[in-house]
Amino acid sequence: MRTELCDTFGIEHPIVAFTPSEHVAAAVTNAGGLGVLGCVRFNDAGELDRVLDWMDANTGGRPYGVDIVMPAKIPDEGSSVDLGKLIPPEHREFVDRTLAQLGVPELPGGADEREGVLGWLHSVARSHVEVALKHPIKLIANALGSPPVDVIEQVHQHGVPVAALAGKAEHAVRHVDNGVDIVVAQGYEAGGHTGEIASMVLLPEIADAVGDRVPVLAAGGIGSGRQVAAALALGASGVWTGSIWLTTEEYLQTMAESEAMQRALVEAKSSDTVRTRIYTGKPARLLKTRWTEAWAAPDAPDPLPMPLQNLLVSHAHNRIHAAGDPSVVSMPVGQIVGRMNRVRPVAEIIDELVRDYAAALSRLDKTR
Amino acid sequence: MRTELCDTFGIEHPIVAFTPSEHVAAAVTNAGGLGVLGCVRFNDAGELDRVLDWMDANTGGRPYGVDIVMPAKIPDEGSSVDLGKLIPPEHREFVDRTLAQLGVPELPGGADEREGVLGWLHSVARSHVEVALKHPIKLIANALGSPPVDVIEQVHQHGVPVAALAGKAEHAVRHVDNGVDIVVAQGYEAGGHTGEIASMVLLPEIADAVGDRVPVLAAGGIGSGRQVAAALALGASGVWTGSIWLTTEEYLQTMAESEAMQRALVEAKSSDTVRTRIYTGKPARLLKTRWTEAWAAPDAPDPLPMPLQNLLVSHAHNRIHAAGDPSVVSMPVGQIVGRMNRVRPVAEIIDELVRDYAAALSRLDKTR
Repeated sequence: MRTELCDTFGIEHPIVAFTPSEHVAAAVTNAGGLGVLGCVRFNDAGELDRVLDWMDANTGGRPYGVDIVMPAKIPDEGSSVDLGKLIPPEHREFVDRTLAQLGVPELPGGADEREGVLGWLHSVARSHVEVALKHPIKLIANALGSPPVDVIEQVHQHGVPVAALAGKAEHAVRHVDNGVDIVVAQGYEAGGHTGEIASMVLLPEIADAVGDRVPVLAAGGIGSGRQVAAALALGASGVWTGSIWLTTEEYLQTMAESEAMQRALVEAKSSDTVRTRIYTGKPARLLKTRWTEAWAAPDAPDPLPMPLQNLLVSHAHNRIHAAGDPSVVSMPVGQIVGRMNRVRPVAEIIDELVRDYAAALSRLDKTR
Repeated sequence: MRTELCDTFGIEHPIVAFTPSEHVAAAVTNAGGLGVLGCVRFNDAGELDRVLDWMDANTGGRPYGVDIVMPAKIPDEGSSVDLGKLIPPEHREFVDRTLAQLGVPELPGGADEREGVLGWLHSVARSHVEVALKHPIKLIANALGSPPVDVIEQVHQHGVPVAALAGKAEHAVRHVDNGVDIVVAQGYEAGGHTGEIASMVLLPEIADAVGDRVPVLAAGGIGSGRQVAAALALGASGVWTGSIWLTTEEYLQTMAESEAMQRALVEAKSSDTVRTRIYTGKPARLLKTRWTEAWAAPDAPDPLPMPLQNLLVSHAHNRIHAAGDPSVVSMPVGQIVGRMNRVRPVAEIIDELVRDYAAALSRLDKTR
């Protein structure tokens, strides 16, 4: 499973793993892939700095990257208090009523409540870039496409390549024109923010559109070596994986309170996801639960635009998280969830991907 | 590009081509694939008989198959006149109003108008089976899953295997339990009736679920040799293709009046399709045009259940077809439409699939 990406990053397998967990990111890097730490959960850049210190101490000089969330259109700046004034009261009432109906209790008195995620405000995402560039990172990826050109130039001055997600060929070309070094082709089946074109069609389309200018990573539907083989056959130089790391032992080391979420994912089938705007305001694929079903009911309001929708639901997410009910989880995940059937160590997944990839190539050999 | 499917059918390439055109079906068969003629357009079994006579005369003993549309749940029988009484007047008014708004003229006086498609009534689909079994067919496929067990047994008595489309692993297993010999795994990106799980995820899931019991064909997103390689890497024994034959020269030989449709397909991008119930009452992927957009507008009624929806729109389809306006086409097609950029002979497409497949395998070789 060697491609030019292995030489670019000095990695053994062209497997890039996006994860909000530093324990997962470090484990992927240590197993020969490229761990990419999602920064959006760090409202405080100092906290990110400390976590990256931990990454440096626990990866022995092996390569890793970070992922920021910087929309192409700059949203209004401001604290969650200012922005909160833009949320209609009917939306707040719907959320309160729904949580009560779903049996999600109030947070215990004095519980430490995180502020709504501000990571996709430009000021915060820029602070993530500043902090990350002080560490020996090997990649900065932007989950929402091309970052502003000045950010790309800033990152390049540190000799770090920039990756950007694309759900259409024309977006991929625009990213490359802006200076992006790696395109992540994110298919319909992917978890989180995603478009409508499936990987089987999108991947060769983007590979053809960008040609030899930059390598393409396949995102969406990758959870086995067969799928890695399919992605490389379609023109990718590697894979961008996310969902499959949610049901790892290492994930729990970072997010100890995620057992209900893991239980829900382990039980879910590939048909148990839904693409909806209720998480951030932009279409994103989530696990289908009683929470997403409530938002799909006829009486539910339309989701708000980014970043208001996440501010609206962030308190609900905290309550849902604390409740620990697998049937009311709010979690981005791809259709590959149907293959995530037990909680495992990261190294076991990497090992299986590599062995299954070799088996897929052997099967293809027999077709000659 | 050889798999066990080549031996099963006595074909050179494991490429199965679904098409309503006997000219395309014969050309695919003559180029080393397996042409499968769609029967749903034949309200009169005698007409199907004559077309299969033509197939026999023009394929030189090479293998071909037929495709029927037989829902698992048996719809009410009756002529279009009887069924037509079940269509609400508001629906008819919406269709008339929309056609006027889109500038689709009435049919010229005395125009020969086909009755609404009745091919998915059990009585008609059974007559297709009866007629087809008098010809040397090598496959009967059912576009709507497993046919009734007595139909499967009837087909088996003639030594003919039965294929059935599936959009979920549990459906595939049920088909095989019913006696189906080949499963067609139809991904989200496919044209026509389709589910929500994309090929990248669905294909290995179905391949694992049916194991060694039957071979699996990959449907949805297959239009290049790279995509065939991806499908085989994911566990398929061959591919089921449909959309890519719509923009062939042979298609026009059967449907001379389809130039506007071909022009619309050649111009379309992969994002120019929509999954909707307006064609048959069940979710099917169509080319996105001003016709599908009208049905997506807030004032549009909900589509009717099968078979009423097709009866409702069949006269509209005749008018749209006669109008010859590429912007108002009503046509099932998959996301692969973005790669269908010129009208070509069938043999050229087969040749390209085979050569591109070899190139994809060569690229994979370099990853070892």
